[in-house]
Amino acid sequence: MTTSSLKKIGVYTSGGDAPGMNPAIRAAVRTALSQKVEVVGILNGYVGMIENRMITLQMRDMANIIQRGGTILKTGRSAEFMKPEYRATAANNLKAQGIDGLICIGGDGSFRGAQLLGAEHKIPIIGIPGTIDNDVYGTDDTIGFDTAVNTALQAIDKIRDTADSHDRIFIVEVMGRNSGWIASHVGLAGGAEEILTAENIISVDKIVENLKNSRARGKTSSIIITAEGQKPGRAYDLSDAIRKKSGLDAKVCILGHQQRGGTPSAHDRILASRLANAAVEALLAGRNNTMIGVQADKLVEIPLDLVTSKEKPGDKTLIHLARLLSI
Amino acid sequence: MTTSSLKKIGVYTSGGDAPGMNPAIRAAVRTALSQKVEVVGILNGYVGMIENRMITLQMRDMANIIQRGGTILKTGRSAEFMKPEYRATAANNLKAQGIDGLICIGGDGSFRGAQLLGAEHKIPIIGIPGTIDNDVYGTDDTIGFDTAVNTALQAIDKIRDTADSHDRIFIVEVMGRNSGWIASHVGLAGGAEEILTAENIISVDKIVENLKNSRARGKTSSIIITAEGQKPGRAYDLSDAIRKKSGLDAKVCILGHQQRGGTPSAHDRILASRLANAAVEALLAGRNNTMIGVQADKLVEIPLDLVTSKEKPGDKTLIHLARLLSI
Amino acid sequence: MTTSSLKKIGVYTSGGDAPGMNPAIRAAVRTALSQKVEVVGILNGYVGMIENRMITLQMRDMANIIQRGGTILKTGRSAEFMKPEYRATAANNLKAQGIDGLICIGGDGSFRGAQLLGAEHKIPIIGIPGTIDNDVYGTDDTIGFDTAVNTALQAIDKIRDTADSHDRIFIVEVMGRNSGWIASHVGLAGGAEEILTAENIISVDKIVENLKNSRARGKTSSIIITAEGQKPGRAYDLSDAIRKKSGLDAKVCILGHQQRGGTPSAHDRILASRLANAAVEALLAGRNNTMIGVQADKLVEIPLDLVTSKEKPGDKTLIHLARLLSI
Amino acid sequence: MTTSSLKKIGVYTSGGDAPGMNPAIRAAVRTALSQKVEVVGILNGYVGMIENRMITLQMRDMANIIQRGGTILKTGRSAEFMKPEYRATAANNLKAQGIDGLICIGGDGSFRGAQLLGAEHKIPIIGIPGTIDNDVYGTDDTIGFDTAVNTALQAIDKIRDTADSHDRIFIVEVMGRNSGWIASHVGLAGGAEEILTAENIISVDKIVENLKNSRARGKTSSIIITAEGQKPGRAYDLSDAIRKKSGLDAKVCILGHQQRGGTPSAHDRILASRLANAAVEALLAGRNNTMIGVQADKLVEIPLDLVTSKEKPGDKTLIHLARLLSI
Repeated sequence: MTTSSLKKIGVYTSGGDAPGMNPAIRAAVRTALSQKVEVVGILNGYVGMIENRMITLQMRDMANIIQRGGTILKTGRSAEFMKPEYRATAANNLKAQGIDGLICIGGDGSFRGAQLLGAEHKIPIIGIPGTIDNDVYGTDDTIGFDTAVNTALQAIDKIRDTADSHDRIFIVEVMGRNSGWIASHVGLAGGAEEILTAENIISVDKIVENLKNSRARGKTSSIIITAEGQKPGRAYDLSDAIRKKSGLDAKVCILGHQQRGGTPSAHDRILASRLANAAVEALLAGRNNTMIGVQADKLVEIPLDLVTSKEKPGDKTLIHLARLLSI
Repeated sequence: MTTSSLKKIGVYTSGGDAPGMNPAIRAAVRTALSQKVEVVGILNGYVGMIENRMITLQMRDMANIIQRGGTILKTGRSAEFMKPEYRATAANNLKAQGIDGLICIGGDGSFRGAQLLGAEHKIPIIGIPGTIDNDVYGTDDTIGFDTAVNTALQAIDKIRDTADSHDRIFIVEVMGRNSGWIASHVGLAGGAEEILTAENIISVDKIVENLKNSRARGKTSSIIITAEGQKPGRAYDLSDAIRKKSGLDAKVCILGHQQRGGTPSAHDRILASRLANAAVEALLAGRNNTMIGVQADKLVEIPLDLVTSKEKPGDKTLIHLARLLSI
Repeated sequence: MTTSSLKKIGVYTSGGDAPGMNPAIRAAVRTALSQKVEVVGILNGYVGMIENRMITLQMRDMANIIQRGGTILKTGRSAEFMKPEYRATAANNLKAQGIDGLICIGGDGSFRGAQLLGAEHKIPIIGIPGTIDNDVYGTDDTIGFDTAVNTALQAIDKIRDTADSHDRIFIVEVMGRNSGWIASHVGLAGGAEEILTAENIISVDKIVENLKNSRARGKTSSIIITAEGQKPGRAYDLSDAIRKKSGLDAKVCILGHQQRGGTPSAHDRILASRLANAAVEALLAGRNNTMIGVQADKLVEIPLDLVTSKEKPGDKTLIHLARLLSI
Repeated sequence: MTTSSLKKIGVYTSGGDAPGMNPAIRAAVRTALSQKVEVVGILNGYVGMIENRMITLQMRDMANIIQRGGTILKTGRSAEFMKPEYRATAANNLKAQGIDGLICIGGDGSFRGAQLLGAEHKIPIIGIPGTIDNDVYGTDDTIGFDTAVNTALQAIDKIRDTADSHDRIFIVEVMGRNSGWIASHVGLAGGAEEILTAENIISVDKIVENLKNSRARGKTSSIIITAEGQKPGRAYDLSDAIRKKSGLDAKVCILGHQQRGGTPSAHDRILASRLANAAVEALLAGRNNTMIGVQADKLVEIPLDLVTSKEKPGDKTLIHLARLLSI
């Protein structure tokens, strides 16, 4: 057991919610309490930090939350937190509560806020990557990604039933603003013929040519996956373009926010438990300004400065494999 | 066992596919074969009837299909079938195959085609109501409705996770072109605050007033369900209107075609088995031009003329109850 | 709105838990509160009534419980409550809380306790049938039954995958102590070859003969469903008997308590909402000593005396249909 | 594209079936066909190899199988294959079909058969680890493991609902004959208090002590996970022992064969696709007598001699973490 100089830590979830945030909260709280360190839950991320909405968390508050989607601490995005005066207010609130260390569960936007707060107000902070998008530099995997992929896949399996019954083409838009991680994984697992991401741009001419070739080979239904990109709804534009070029009718499905919810998968609960346990251990051991991530299935520490300044590249291998196997 | 004068019957699925069509096919085929009546599967509904795409179905072809979404006979919509000359072609194909009776699994559009074919070409036809929309007159329940409601509900449970984590308003658009059956059931079961259907039109002013009241009462997140109506995408219009009136931000989710697929629920498998068994029994007993439906949990026969000429009214009771309980 | 003489009612869940109890609690509480009647939740059924474990329930306590399995009021069985002195204690506790009416959610065992309490201590009580077994007289359907059937069915679909991959026979034991309702529904929906219940006893000789016949017809895998009956584990005895008679190897799966849990189906949430809303309306309208049930899809009131003195017969129609269709 | 000297390869699944075998077959077949190499599917593993039950596999045969549990090639265990004369028969059958290379999807028992066949009859063989148990040396992960863990977890989530409603202790037995991989993952993800495996043996005294301590700390329900070990049903023995020592009543659930079935998770579909694609590439590139596995998320080749002679150790880290976090 670490003998830490910290007496009370704060835990919060920030940015888009992700399935597995609750098991992460549970693991953080119980790890801390088992070392006689008190825990305060900060509600709605930086919003609650500014507005001083905080609750004490006990062992039994963590009962029966491991399987729940969403986050019991709620989450939020705060434009105000980008201004120093609001960060000062937040720091005062933390000080008033006696909080001398923070665990931030979120994506790189949330970590940027954490860095500023930590630097300006001398509060040690450890980050845990929690976002369905899997777009955080320094970690192979983020909490919520596996669940989101499975949720999207289950929807696609259902869409495939109807695609196959009607010999139809479907364009399915999945989440992933700047990143194609969900798209590439869902596409390979869902047997998609085509996967479009920011990193894998295919011309409408090429798509139409591929569709015609696959129909010629006897394939009667097709599924095209597209990441939502900067603007949700691009699937409609693609469908229109395909129709104009070829006369082919491609139905559109936009999976939307259901991808954020649902009971976390086994993988995400285990990942969340490991990361959050290690994050609290690191915080109590005096570490600061880093994220606990996972690389090649081992837990690692990455400085937040790296995490927030670098881009995580996508993985085009899966897209190529999906294309080969969907022939 | 009926001693029927029929020697060979045709089975087809038509219109929008619905989960439970496969158990219906299985029950129809096995009931017929157990009475020494041969069965031909007609592919893609009236399209396959015109194009003579038919396959012989045996006992073992029905193995392991009871749990599958979609329809192994595929389905289709045929504009051509509305013209007498194409129906004559279809009738000739049926005759050439030796088919002397038909089982049509579909909705009222499909039954209209069946009526014309039967009347013009003296082929006895029994209908089985198969559509997720539950909008067929003469039956309380259609094959696929229960599964579609559960599929939509599971998506809404996930959306609720994120709605609750972010204190957000969501507008969720479910299927149901002219009918609000899915919307009313999903809305009550999903704890929706507001349910909009063709039969339950609520002004944007009223919606905004209700939302403001519920926020004042401490409700932090809300779900509004809307049936897609004539034009999918109305949820976007509603979201815009709410924003303009009130500044409230309501996120949009359009559940789309996933509602058509998926493994059929227990209820739909049982309903499909009962209806299809009774339909074949009725056909072999010399009945014609009727649909087998269910009323007050009893199987009934309804003349197709009634089924296709009358509208099934929606049920506003559930909508009122949903509103009362979502306070 | 009813103007009731009742000021405060108590709600409890009792006996085996069933998915849908939470939506029933939600509907009861919100119906009462919307009529300015206060609500107390009694914990762990009669145990909490005796031990005075009660909590005040407010509108917002009902948020986000509609989708949860189990019961937030917990449930229990109390041998002590069968003794008049403990019922007197319970009645005193209710009186001390100012409770002047009760809503009991449970099965017929729970209703027997309610009758005694109501008769001896002049407390009006309305029952709501909540049990996965569907064995309550006077109602076609009980809260939790549809969910339990679907849970068992999903397990059987998985078992079918492996049965089919290995050409195996499986005996699957489902819940249902004295009743074969789950067995008959799951059996038909799951494509079972044989369904054994207290009301449908089949000799081992006959089972072996049927299995041999189906193998001769080319069927390579088979699923036999058995209700657990008085003693869970009978599936093992059956497997042994089949092996001794025939040398056929039948694997055993006992589905067990997972059938009690899980998020309630749409059907059960709607049923629970309707029954609980009507039950509170009835209680406030001065009704007493009855159960709200559903018959032919209409809500009905049945005197508790009838409910607890009569047996609900099983439905053998489904078993016969299952057998016919599993050929 | 490799220009391989192989003209026709055989693919088979062997031993216990695992979700993800179908995506593995799909990937193997399509990879080979895309390189103009023919593919034969061998049915029921070594049984079909001996009995010459083989089918030609084409591109379109692979349509719509990626989401299916079980294996379309069926599987089997063959005691006869352990005898050289039967392997000679099998080799002759392969030769007669023109098969000059094999892909074996299974566990280490299946690989032992493959080694013998390959060594005696000069047929190049590449193995793909497919088993829910994750007990194959040389690979971090096997096809089917992730799905089985999630299936067991979903059952445990349901059992938790009823455990919590009744304040009960449950002992849940999961699969894993010699290996505790499923138990440790499910236990951590399911919030189990205690996880018993061959490598983590805990005395009944200690279990009772822990249970009493956790009750004293206010924990009202507990879940204990046990791997089935050599003999399914050990959960009953444990429950008896706990009752005798302490009077505590622990309910038993044996999850059984449902853990083998079900639609494969995204993870397993992706893993299966990657492994099978690489396995065929390796076979066509002239590799032999190795398994394609995954280590630290990278594909690797491991000699079958190592795979079948070494034990893969369990991972006690998760068990310790589970215990810490279930306080």
